[in-house]
Amino acid sequence: MEIKVLKDILSANEQIAEGNRRLLDSQGVFTVNLMSSPGAGKTSLILATIEGLKGKTKVGVIEGDVSSSLDAEVVGKAGVPVLQINTGGGCHLDANMIHNALDNMPLSDIGLLFIENVGNLICPAEFALGEHKRVVISSIPEGDDKPFKYPLMFHKADAVLINKIDLLPHVKFDIDYFLQAVRGINDKVEIFQLSCVTGQGIEQWAAWLLTRMGRG
Amino acid sequence: MEIKVLKDILSANEQIAEGNRRLLDSQGVFTVNLMSSPGAGKTSLILATIEGLKGKTKVGVIEGDVSSSLDAEVVGKAGVPVLQINTGGGCHLDANMIHNALDNMPLSDIGLLFIENVGNLICPAEFALGEHKRVVISSIPEGDDKPFKYPLMFHKADAVLINKIDLLPHVKFDIDYFLQAVRGINDKVEIFQLSCVTGQGIEQWAAWLLTRMGRG
Repeated sequence: MEIKVLKDILSANEQIAEGNRRLLDSQGVFTVNLMSSPGAGKTSLILATIEGLKGKTKVGVIEGDVSSSLDAEVVGKAGVPVLQINTGGGCHLDANMIHNALDNMPLSDIGLLFIENVGNLICPAEFALGEHKRVVISSIPEGDDKPFKYPLMFHKADAVLINKIDLLPHVKFDIDYFLQAVRGINDKVEIFQLSCVTGQGIEQWAAWLLTRMGRG
Repeated sequence: MEIKVLKDILSANEQIAEGNRRLLDSQGVFTVNLMSSPGAGKTSLILATIEGLKGKTKVGVIEGDVSSSLDAEVVGKAGVPVLQINTGGGCHLDANMIHNALDNMPLSDIGLLFIENVGNLICPAEFALGEHKRVVISSIPEGDDKPFKYPLMFHKADAVLINKIDLLPHVKFDIDYFLQAVRGINDKVEIFQLSCVTGQGIEQWAAWLLTRMGRG
């Protein structure tokens, strides 16, 4: 019984996600669902990407959080359209939340939409939002075992960003072990090593986005 | 309707948690529910605490993970009783999982039981397990805004451990801002600053546990 209910929820979510995707396609808005642990650097990555894509495409941001609007305030200062969704305790965004948010985004003015999901490596993996690409950030201080512990998140990712690479000299993290783990779960995934502090790797990541958007 | 169902689940969980608590009390096992983001250092903290309490009390560990048994293998090498719970995709432990696990733990042989919850700052906060203390680890690289973003977790904590304090020189983290945020949400919480790499703060944390166990 419980499994049936879960399937129904996921299938209803999938239908709404497909509607979102059609709307985004019709407006030419390439959309990235950005997921990670709390504090892995989703907001910093968005800010660095906005800067890296300046003059190339206009970015919009939907921020997902349990209850605060801290990230939306930070992103708003970068001068891009931003909308905050508070889940009210929920541990992930779903397609219906995004459906409602899209009504309030100036879609005709933007080329790239980031959806910053709730900080969580588990639940967000199960809910499609209508995005074109799923991107997972895994940061160096979290340790190199995360792909083994949260396999669904890495299995479904189109790209994995190894963030905070500048901290590598200060913590125990075996890059080869991590890369092998990710590739073992998902052999098609793109992997970038980057730092939003030093800027390392941001150019390559931004170029990848532009290519996927058909502007590379 | 949805809220009613949720209340029923939480209330059923609460009843089982009370049963767990009675069992643990009858066996004199002090129990800590350890929660954090993925990679904040729950397992390292357990290992450092086992070492710090050597000769003072015997420790047992229940490991909660989505699907792997990596942490249980690491903890098992420390020579303490350890039991792995896999949630099969679930984002938190619940009281019933612990009820079943306690049947398989040598409770009469241990004085302190760590329950390492699933790495997640949201869902675990809502589910009592029968523990005596709830402890949240927040690590320096995650950033100083976590109390604002995951308030329920910090509101319900008996202690907050600021882990990876050795990384403070290498990242942006305002300790005063963080402390003020935690105290604003929870004015009774104990706060420790520690590092499982350098050992800083472990002695004070272990002493606090012993005092709470009535052995200080």
